[in-house]
Amino acid sequence: MARATAHPDHRLISSEDVQGTVVYGADNKNIGEVDHLLIDKLSGRVAYAVMSFGGFLGLAHSHYPIPWSALRYDPTLDGYRTGITEAQLRDAPDFSDDAWSDRSWESQTHQHYGASTYWD
Amino acid sequence: MARATAHPDHRLISSEDVQGTVVYGADNKNIGEVDHLLIDKLSGRVAYAVMSFGGFLGLAHSHYPIPWSALRYDPTLDGYRTGITEAQLRDAPDFSDDAWSDRSWESQTHQHYGASTYWD
Repeated sequence: MARATAHPDHRLISSEDVQGTVVYGADNKNIGEVDHLLIDKLSGRVAYAVMSFGGFLGLAHSHYPIPWSALRYDPTLDGYRTGITEAQLRDAPDFSDDAWSDRSWESQTHQHYGASTYWD
Repeated sequence: MARATAHPDHRLISSEDVQGTVVYGADNKNIGEVDHLLIDKLSGRVAYAVMSFGGFLGLAHSHYPIPWSALRYDPTLDGYRTGITEAQLRDAPDFSDDAWSDRSWESQTHQHYGASTYWD
């Protein structure tokens, strides 16, 4: 497991440290980890964390794209915290390789998770 | 060498694909590669690409933080293009672990490279 950062009080975090960082849900339960990030080339904003959810059995996919704004870094946990639930993952808008070119899918996904978009 | 993206026409790029991607300078010369990214935790913006410059001999450091806005993805090269020169690297504001907490250093560095800041 990668540590989210060697300097939890710093404003900046390395992409290498984000990858592998644990994500905690309700009751500080470890629900999965960040596999990698998806970055908007034009704006330079992180758009999604692609997460693996080892703890949630029976999900349709091994990895799910989660809006980056749905994760919040918590220095005390040395990981990310999210309010996303297993039920939300099961009901998430389905995705394919084309989803990334589909702003409509992106809007639905952000709305589904109650997350603010990375575009304006 | 990692490819910058398997889908050059997509808006989004994986952090795993950015790491190791070649950066080209003037005359399409390979001047180095992206080692990792530094991301602003609060805004979710990519702030810097930490680059290694194998082709530039005699630099003081093995890695340099380059403002992300100084790199532009070029699908035809399958890599990033930058106008940053060896002279700029040699004259860059010196950095240490404290630099990341120092907005003054960050301002100087962006100004030095003629790059727009990731904050407003």
